[in-house]
Amino acid sequence: MYKLIKVDCGVCAAEGFYADGISAGLKPNNAKDMAFVYSDTLCEIAFTFTTNKMTAAPIRHFKAKGEFQTNFVLINSKNANAMTGKAGIKDIDEILATLPKEIVNPVMSSTGVIGVRLPKEKIIAGAKLFDLTKKDNNAAACAIMTTDTFSKQIAYKVVLEDGSSFHIGAMAKGAGMINPAMATMLCFITTDAKVSKKQMQDILNLHVKTTFNAASVDGDTSTNDTVMLLSNGKSGAYHEEAFSEALYHIMRFLAREMVRDGEGATKLVTYEISGAKNDEEAEVVAKALTNSLLVKTALYGEDPNWGRIASTVGASGAEADEERLKISFEDVCVYDRGELYFDEEMEQKAAEIMKREAFTISCDLGIGEGKFTAFGCDLGYEYVKINADYRT
Amino acid sequence: MYKLIKVDCGVCAAEGFYADGISAGLKPNNAKDMAFVYSDTLCEIAFTFTTNKMTAAPIRHFKAKGEFQTNFVLINSKNANAMTGKAGIKDIDEILATLPKEIVNPVMSSTGVIGVRLPKEKIIAGAKLFDLTKKDNNAAACAIMTTDTFSKQIAYKVVLEDGSSFHIGAMAKGAGMINPAMATMLCFITTDAKVSKKQMQDILNLHVKTTFNAASVDGDTSTNDTVMLLSNGKSGAYHEEAFSEALYHIMRFLAREMVRDGEGATKLVTYEISGAKNDEEAEVVAKALTNSLLVKTALYGEDPNWGRIASTVGASGAEADEERLKISFEDVCVYDRGELYFDEEMEQKAAEIMKREAFTISCDLGIGEGKFTAFGCDLGYEYVKINADYRT
Repeated sequence: MYKLIKVDCGVCAAEGFYADGISAGLKPNNAKDMAFVYSDTLCEIAFTFTTNKMTAAPIRHFKAKGEFQTNFVLINSKNANAMTGKAGIKDIDEILATLPKEIVNPVMSSTGVIGVRLPKEKIIAGAKLFDLTKKDNNAAACAIMTTDTFSKQIAYKVVLEDGSSFHIGAMAKGAGMINPAMATMLCFITTDAKVSKKQMQDILNLHVKTTFNAASVDGDTSTNDTVMLLSNGKSGAYHEEAFSEALYHIMRFLAREMVRDGEGATKLVTYEISGAKNDEEAEVVAKALTNSLLVKTALYGEDPNWGRIASTVGASGAEADEERLKISFEDVCVYDRGELYFDEEMEQKAAEIMKREAFTISCDLGIGEGKFTAFGCDLGYEYVKINADYRT
Repeated sequence: MYKLIKVDCGVCAAEGFYADGISAGLKPNNAKDMAFVYSDTLCEIAFTFTTNKMTAAPIRHFKAKGEFQTNFVLINSKNANAMTGKAGIKDIDEILATLPKEIVNPVMSSTGVIGVRLPKEKIIAGAKLFDLTKKDNNAAACAIMTTDTFSKQIAYKVVLEDGSSFHIGAMAKGAGMINPAMATMLCFITTDAKVSKKQMQDILNLHVKTTFNAASVDGDTSTNDTVMLLSNGKSGAYHEEAFSEALYHIMRFLAREMVRDGEGATKLVTYEISGAKNDEEAEVVAKALTNSLLVKTALYGEDPNWGRIASTVGASGAEADEERLKISFEDVCVYDRGELYFDEEMEQKAAEIMKREAFTISCDLGIGEGKFTAFGCDLGYEYVKINADYRT
């Protein structure tokens, strides 16, 4: 037996981890735009990166290093260092070379505009402001934000039966270019659990599928998506099931937070698909629903237009049949294999549910045992406003 | 040798074809909402239908009839007769049974809201207003519109070397739920060419791929998509190459008109993809670009944000490499294998091009010989407005 205790903290929850955020002048108005995560001993690293073939320079830089341990991650927002070619890689080398000597094998991570070289001098000057003794979770979590409207952090203390304990803490950013094709955001998770590199990579891979890869804001997969899990083993404690469960809760929470903070989004919708031919087809249906513009705009309009849900299920490519399909908004069934008359009372009930900030839409395809749950949001005027002129 | 002459007409261009539109009270304010296409002799039919598994009742009704000839198509807007089960099929039978006896094997086609039974009595009463001697192309083309802001018609007279001639005329509707997965709209094409059923089906299939299937407004595939080509052979003339060329021009024109009239769209963008590994991968890239929300909102903002184009190419799944990719807005190259500095002058030139109502974005992937051209539009506030509460 073990206990998960949620603690009011972020990446500094785990022993020996430090973090802070500062302003280096990349964002206007002295907003924080650079952060670090530092461990006072070396860490093993587990990670997942974007599937986008135009992989950003920091990810290519990381991959080129092969197997290594590190004690430092440098993160900047406002500039993605993507589509910057070999010069983008060289910029990272030059920046990291200026860091103090207690930093070993530093890693860089960037998010922001694509296709512009990093403002190298500003970043080098910014890094000189870092104080490695700081544990300011909030400052770090704010500094990595782009169009996010709130910072995203969570941490658990895991207490094992023998009284020993370990921590997992995390911060993430992400509000647009969020798509269920991969992790699709930046997320940094720290732990002092005594977990092996292989174990933590396996557990990370397992949970990415049902958390970050099940979240969609706009169906666009970014060039910079990164999930990084750093472990320094300092607690000396570990329990596989407890670690896995805590990590799952952290990743699911952050995935949902990103969708809730989706650009212009006013609603977080959970799509629970069941009765599909198999799990893969359920996933296809769930993701089609999270990405359908017609479903998303109906959600925004609080219009219980279940016909668009049915149409999207039918267009998804998965096996489906109108005489087997059931659709519900929470506990209100709005379509039942063609045998239900969608009357005004039902419409009103469904419309009431759609006014909530978060609710579930269930589709039972009535064909097999496949199921999958995905997280989506609505699409309103604000999404257009934010993205019609992102760069200025 | 042959000549294609564009004529100012629609479905009545071909000899022996009649059409009209009337108001049956389905739409408010006495707007036209029912149309017919009638031929005074029996027609062979070629067709393509939606790939959506929630196929609407009129399409299932058509398919159930097997091989047949007809002289009459009845079309209504405002109600799609989709997700209406067996009752929806029975409604069609009852409506068609009331038509006058000169009508043989009539076909029905519907577009509008999903999941509501047809107002049968109104439609039966409306059909009694039809005058089969009318040749009012405009009235018919307007009656089949839903969120369309203009009607879509075109016709060609094809003059062959020996002086004989035939006609092809067409009307279409479509502005939303337009996706490159299939025909994705209603389109009725008539011809008096002496073409066999098999020939015209083959030619229709050939051109659907590069016209209607290359057009996207919002990536949603409707339940009712229909392209129907009716031939009565009255001209006695035919020439395969001329027929194919004229039909291609008609289908391409209507596909582009639908995108130009895309819900809330202000721009028609042609994506010319070349240098892909093969034609299939070029198609994947072209369609990813037409459907990317980030690309569409940047178009709306007239922001030459080529980084989003590069990112979408990279995320599409096609083989791609930033050191081989070139991106141009018309003749202005904005990204050239990482070797170009995107300066203010280039940005200004690209921004000028984006102010146009129609322009081309080219991506040369620099990998192979594959190419494909697709038609897309921008996404602005109006799309959200139109779709947030479509039903009321």
